[in-house]
Amino acid sequence: MDPALAELAADLPAHALLTDPDQIEGYRRDAAADPLAGRPRAVVRATCTADVQSVMRWATRHRVAVVPRGAGSGLSGGASAVDGCVVLSTERMRAIRIDPATRVAVVQPGALNAEVKQAAAEHSLWYPPDPASVDISSIGGNAATNAGGLCCVKYGVTTDYVLGMQVVLADGTAVTLGGPRLKDVAGLSLTKLFVGSEGILGVITEVTLRLIPAQASPSTVVAMFDTVQDAANAVVAITASVRPAMLELMDHASINAVEDYGRMGLDRSAQALLLVQSDAPGDAASEVAHIVEACEKSGASEVFATDDPAEGAGFTAARRLVAPALMQLGTVLLEDVTVPIPTLPALLAGINRISAECDVLICVVAHAGDGNTHPVVVFDPDDAESQARAERAFSEVMDLAIAMGGTITGEHGVGRLKRDWLPKQLGDDVMWVTRRVKDALDPLGILNPGAVLRP
Amino acid sequence: MDPALAELAADLPAHALLTDPDQIEGYRRDAAADPLAGRPRAVVRATCTADVQSVMRWATRHRVAVVPRGAGSGLSGGASAVDGCVVLSTERMRAIRIDPATRVAVVQPGALNAEVKQAAAEHSLWYPPDPASVDISSIGGNAATNAGGLCCVKYGVTTDYVLGMQVVLADGTAVTLGGPRLKDVAGLSLTKLFVGSEGILGVITEVTLRLIPAQASPSTVVAMFDTVQDAANAVVAITASVRPAMLELMDHASINAVEDYGRMGLDRSAQALLLVQSDAPGDAASEVAHIVEACEKSGASEVFATDDPAEGAGFTAARRLVAPALMQLGTVLLEDVTVPIPTLPALLAGINRISAECDVLICVVAHAGDGNTHPVVVFDPDDAESQARAERAFSEVMDLAIAMGGTITGEHGVGRLKRDWLPKQLGDDVMWVTRRVKDALDPLGILNPGAVLRP
Repeated sequence: MDPALAELAADLPAHALLTDPDQIEGYRRDAAADPLAGRPRAVVRATCTADVQSVMRWATRHRVAVVPRGAGSGLSGGASAVDGCVVLSTERMRAIRIDPATRVAVVQPGALNAEVKQAAAEHSLWYPPDPASVDISSIGGNAATNAGGLCCVKYGVTTDYVLGMQVVLADGTAVTLGGPRLKDVAGLSLTKLFVGSEGILGVITEVTLRLIPAQASPSTVVAMFDTVQDAANAVVAITASVRPAMLELMDHASINAVEDYGRMGLDRSAQALLLVQSDAPGDAASEVAHIVEACEKSGASEVFATDDPAEGAGFTAARRLVAPALMQLGTVLLEDVTVPIPTLPALLAGINRISAECDVLICVVAHAGDGNTHPVVVFDPDDAESQARAERAFSEVMDLAIAMGGTITGEHGVGRLKRDWLPKQLGDDVMWVTRRVKDALDPLGILNPGAVLRP
Repeated sequence: MDPALAELAADLPAHALLTDPDQIEGYRRDAAADPLAGRPRAVVRATCTADVQSVMRWATRHRVAVVPRGAGSGLSGGASAVDGCVVLSTERMRAIRIDPATRVAVVQPGALNAEVKQAAAEHSLWYPPDPASVDISSIGGNAATNAGGLCCVKYGVTTDYVLGMQVVLADGTAVTLGGPRLKDVAGLSLTKLFVGSEGILGVITEVTLRLIPAQASPSTVVAMFDTVQDAANAVVAITASVRPAMLELMDHASINAVEDYGRMGLDRSAQALLLVQSDAPGDAASEVAHIVEACEKSGASEVFATDDPAEGAGFTAARRLVAPALMQLGTVLLEDVTVPIPTLPALLAGINRISAECDVLICVVAHAGDGNTHPVVVFDPDDAESQARAERAFSEVMDLAIAMGGTITGEHGVGRLKRDWLPKQLGDDVMWVTRRVKDALDPLGILNPGAVLRP
């Protein structure tokens, strides 16, 4: 072991530092499978905040890049290794403490989202944010990317639930930001700044999450449409006056991919499907009536409503199968563009046009109620020409979203895959502000270099 | 006019620059009536973003401090003038544009909160944040302080509704952050950083606010208690399982001050009153039943419930009279400490002890459902000894809140009045982070110097 790594190992518990190339290989990439991922010199599986501090102090002394990593489920290459870096994994920091009186969860970053939900549920409390990766993504990663999900249309995203956190800065200093207070304006909104900072400002070692009373049992509406445009119009009509607890869209290709994968009983002939839930206690019936009416007026070919939570959960499960189902069709480039709601029909039309022009399959699944779409570009990884067309489509979808006043990423993060599009969206002046803040907190540029910003 | 000011005047519309001492006098202080407020050299009443840019470019060239000012309703001295500064008022920038399809309001900073609410209501939409100053405070100030209010217990604070903004930086550059997108994680959470930054990072010249469907008609519960402790216990019990749309507490002194001021029909003998609203459409009856039961089990001497919105609005109006009513009793020091909900009874007991020890009247009104209390220290401004005891009590309440894991300010901001307590709450390391971010964006220290941070 080289002397610098030996120095780091001496500051860490036994077995926390991995240098075996076979072991390290699994830490090079997150779920984005970034082909440009580098080779780390080591992986540290931290067991506590002090371990994270040791790594950052050492990295500062030796000017070594550190790539923080949660569960590795990220979809934008935010945790792609860079050559010679140390990958700092929080997978072993998994403690969850629920304080039911204060209604907060104090959670180490490696705990999975679903584990936090489960721990809260034991006290009849609820942690709402529910990225599709709920069973495999960590809370630290959720906070670092400001993860979204299906319930956000009514209940907001991760940042709305992060009341405080402990963060280790580039030089190894651990700071506590915010805390278990429902209102707190003492000083700058640093907690909010660190949420969504993708590991470029510090390493999150603990989060304090707001919990709310358990969700009421939802009613579910499923509507089929002969065109994606009709479905998009229905989304605009629904959200004009009710706040559904879920409002998802699947297009024809997504429906059929799910049916091929899991036989969930969806109508293969539909060009689009909306999955809508209402959880307004005592008022679900009137919300459901409004949702049904909005779908019918928008030209739905079939509308089905149920108060049975199990039946609703079945449809939700089908929706959650889209990502794994599409991965069966080939290699995917997973988009995450979001536009203002009224623009959704035009965005979907534009994606359809790009699909035709680039001669590539683009399946669309969307958190439609937020205007947050996931166009999934599917290609054959063994066909360079197919891959080039897919990459062109991926790029054009982002350009289209920007042109429509949208964002290149609604909930996955910029990471390394979308970094080159960020200046197109934000402009030079906002990039300058971003760089100033980054440089102020990480003057050596050792924290996740290459994520969000060019190194 | 001195040559530097003449240079500024040349860049501004006629009458935008005020230098008459009599006119300037009214811009030296906000509602905190800071006795240490300085004397500005001029006031600029900007008419548009370009005016704000002219001021900041000029201030950068001449190294002149700029104190941004909204409606001047701030309670922490965030808009206190400093000697030789330019006060930059946004009072004339009042345009409001509602986009009902996207459900956003695009608002200039000088528009009042109530004006935005009214404009949204014309489209059956709702802008929830409702500081007690709703009729007199501006949206720019609300965003700069991350203002709260009565509905926050269910609907969140200002930052939860700010989707984007235009900000003029220290050097005069105007940047657009965020936008009309319900989910957006492209780059750092800069919008969230600027919300609550109290004018020390930039000058907000436009905000894009999320609107939601109009609130359902609320049901109201009023409960009287023989002790403040019983009322505080009821707050803990209520919030354990329902999400009321309002949960306010008034103590004996507040009740009587309101009755002296406006004869609203409150029970003068009660030691504490809870004002609770439920707006769960279709389910208010069950929420109300739960609220009533929680109050009764906590020892309420009388509980009254009504579905009549007008009757509920009457009680809310009484609650909103507390601040003006208390100002009749003497000069006030208005506290804003917030603690975790279960700590609320102990905080109120501690405030009672401080009141006795310092021999000073402290009336308490609280957004109790958020743990956000406004102990109001009343003193005779002509009695130096009384003032000294009041200042000691003001300080001790903040120390108590910090010791209990609370914050010195839940919604008013740090400004200049609470600046010296901020390091006690945040600690040196978080102050260092704050200073780094401030220096990165305002290297000359010309933006609202002395607010939040020592100059």
